[in-house]
Amino acid sequence: MSLESLLNDSRQKFEDELAEFLRIPSVSARSEHKEDMARCADWVRDKLREQGMEAEVIPTRGHPIVYGELSEAGPDAPTVLVYGHYDVQPVEPLDEWETPPFEPSVRDGRMYARGTADDKGQVHVHMKAVEAYREAKGALPVNVKFLFEGEEEVGSVNLEAFIKSNVARLACDAAVISDTPMLSPEHPSICVGLRGMVYMEVRLKGPSQDLHSGQYGGGVVNPANALAKVISRLKDDNGRITIPGFYADVKALSEIERKSLAEVPLTEEEFRQEAGVSALGGGEAGVHFIERIWRRPTLDVNGLLSGYTGEGAKTIIPAKALAKISMRLVPDQDPKAIRAAFESYVRSLKPEGVEMEVMMHSDGLPWAADPEGPLFRAAATAINAAFGSDPLFISEGGSIPIVPMIEQILDTPVLLLGFALPGCNLHSPNEWLSLDLYHKGIETMTRLYDEIAREFAG
Amino acid sequence: MSLESLLNDSRQKFEDELAEFLRIPSVSARSEHKEDMARCADWVRDKLREQGMEAEVIPTRGHPIVYGELSEAGPDAPTVLVYGHYDVQPVEPLDEWETPPFEPSVRDGRMYARGTADDKGQVHVHMKAVEAYREAKGALPVNVKFLFEGEEEVGSVNLEAFIKSNVARLACDAAVISDTPMLSPEHPSICVGLRGMVYMEVRLKGPSQDLHSGQYGGGVVNPANALAKVISRLKDDNGRITIPGFYADVKALSEIERKSLAEVPLTEEEFRQEAGVSALGGGEAGVHFIERIWRRPTLDVNGLLSGYTGEGAKTIIPAKALAKISMRLVPDQDPKAIRAAFESYVRSLKPEGVEMEVMMHSDGLPWAADPEGPLFRAAATAINAAFGSDPLFISEGGSIPIVPMIEQILDTPVLLLGFALPGCNLHSPNEWLSLDLYHKGIETMTRLYDEIAREFAG
Repeated sequence: MSLESLLNDSRQKFEDELAEFLRIPSVSARSEHKEDMARCADWVRDKLREQGMEAEVIPTRGHPIVYGELSEAGPDAPTVLVYGHYDVQPVEPLDEWETPPFEPSVRDGRMYARGTADDKGQVHVHMKAVEAYREAKGALPVNVKFLFEGEEEVGSVNLEAFIKSNVARLACDAAVISDTPMLSPEHPSICVGLRGMVYMEVRLKGPSQDLHSGQYGGGVVNPANALAKVISRLKDDNGRITIPGFYADVKALSEIERKSLAEVPLTEEEFRQEAGVSALGGGEAGVHFIERIWRRPTLDVNGLLSGYTGEGAKTIIPAKALAKISMRLVPDQDPKAIRAAFESYVRSLKPEGVEMEVMMHSDGLPWAADPEGPLFRAAATAINAAFGSDPLFISEGGSIPIVPMIEQILDTPVLLLGFALPGCNLHSPNEWLSLDLYHKGIETMTRLYDEIAREFAG
Repeated sequence: MSLESLLNDSRQKFEDELAEFLRIPSVSARSEHKEDMARCADWVRDKLREQGMEAEVIPTRGHPIVYGELSEAGPDAPTVLVYGHYDVQPVEPLDEWETPPFEPSVRDGRMYARGTADDKGQVHVHMKAVEAYREAKGALPVNVKFLFEGEEEVGSVNLEAFIKSNVARLACDAAVISDTPMLSPEHPSICVGLRGMVYMEVRLKGPSQDLHSGQYGGGVVNPANALAKVISRLKDDNGRITIPGFYADVKALSEIERKSLAEVPLTEEEFRQEAGVSALGGGEAGVHFIERIWRRPTLDVNGLLSGYTGEGAKTIIPAKALAKISMRLVPDQDPKAIRAAFESYVRSLKPEGVEMEVMMHSDGLPWAADPEGPLFRAAATAINAAFGSDPLFISEGGSIPIVPMIEQILDTPVLLLGFALPGCNLHSPNEWLSLDLYHKGIETMTRLYDEIAREFAG
């Protein structure tokens, strides 16, 4: 049977198996799912073995890594490392899901479940591509290494150590990661830029306990008012971040880059609808919205808490107030320098009469690909064959710290080629994946093996 | 037995009965305490009857009112109306109480329990003064009416209607309320000023659900950042409230009033320690702290909530953000005008891309007494007899909407004479009342009957 016919005949079987994968509630952040995480890792390992790969579950201090290998192409063939993650985000708020998060449901050509897009559906694309290729053609023209972690949604805390102590085992000529979206169903996309991040928390402490706002109002500094003022001073009226030195290392876009961003086939109106807002905003005035979300740094409050927040009213001056504040960074901003600049500036805004605590939750480097060389040529050819159109080079406003990590530690080019779509409710209720793109993804990967074999042999 | 000896001999008995009163968890805000509220009202009624008063429990749409009367002084004697409340604030956070809130505990001459100071302990002062006076002297020289409500801590929602439809029944020559503090144990105090209030809530709604801060950051307005900015614009860097027209009706202090405020025997350092803060602040720069907490209007955030506020980090742009914001008002500010000015100013600060909802939780008039006439002369004499010193005229930063209400509807002077102390943890964990002042309060009231009889007869 031709690979094409086989892929066509296997659609239902693949989707059923994907649903089985999605039914395992592999929420890495919740300790009550620890056993589900182990069960999910075992499930992946077993499937890899069933399709002829060597595979094992490798324990870490947290959730295990699943590692699989197929070396039948031999030592002279190129080796492709595929990274993905089998853990998913928490599912709350549960009542906003139209169908339960761990009962996959197909509606209008989309499969709905937690993890469809991020990232179990895309991990499954790689698994089934290897299976289909081998079934149709006997053996892969490249060697394949699968590295699937279970802690991506909790900061990949054990992955760097694992990669560093397994450099020889993970050695490869190219790395492929499918954890990014396409711009639209008509625009297969290669992501060539990622923003980095610094995620901070600021806590203000005023009186030793909540005070009566009548008896003390006007006499003591209110930590909630003070926090609001601190936050308001982090950006000016034009949306520009006011932390001294914040923009110092931001690499200016070339004219060509700016022009190509402006030509991205996504309109402000499409993006506005997808975001579900009445008007766009939130970034630097006068900067094109695509540049703002892909190539400019940001500062967003992720959470605020102080005082009485229940129904009705309580007349208190809160004892304390907290804000979670994260900044997205772009090349060549350095997370460590930005963290220091943030902390020192925020401390300078603290009024007398309150104490301030500033802590960091996480950070990650920004990244930009160099889209030249055999890996990107191979990808362009494979994509064109599967989709009938050239790939679009896009950037991603989010952060995937694993990308610069793999690139640097394993000294390999990284290809970010994903098949989710914008608006697929990543990290939100009703996450979905287009089944058409899921299957196109599998086809793209089978073609990519051939193209990488050709390009790296040349 | 002389009244003096009787009061002395009754100390333990009174304290035991007060403890019994405090053991009933009469939390008006919590529906699970509805039966406790009814039980507490019955308890008060029964005690009033036991001490020879006519008394009844009068149902309202919410918690009942307890009404008691004693008319043995006859139609020519003056009538004193005593207002108080038997409901208490919620007790959370429970783990900060050194002893449980409804298990009264005496330590260092203080009784600790929810309601000791606000207001059950002070209601009990009035109950026991009547009992002791009659036991020692046979009959009171004034007629007495007790009006104790069960909804003071939830806005006295049914009281105004009750007073309005019972004007004849409640008719009196003087009203006495013990729900305010003394300045210090050495300074018996009459409160001659109260701040009014407008309590608002502002809600901002951005995207239809929380969004990924990487994918959308820089593209959409963040409701939490926007709310912080709105709040920060409500005061300038000198602590002056920037709502247009906010200070228009604030009555300037006379030179005499300002001088008397500066002579209040409370130092900044004492107030700072009592508030438990590292430095004072929070009001208008350059204004004396006593004036700031008693006679200047304020604006305080009472609560803030947006996005993710749990442990760790979640990279979202929150869908919404809310702030509870209350303003304390001084004569002659009008709560309705201030509410309108607040709402219109806050709406003018709303950026495009978020929707704003502004609502009011409650409001109340500011109040100033005219400390002349027979009631205040009687009080001064009674206080001097019980405490050995003249009363201090103080103001109160808090709001007691019932005071202007009683004054206006019943056309009577109101005397605010309380026996709690600053730092007694009103509305907070570990609320307490000095037992010495509790007993001095009872004595003061017994003397006040004689003095009112004398002054109003004259």
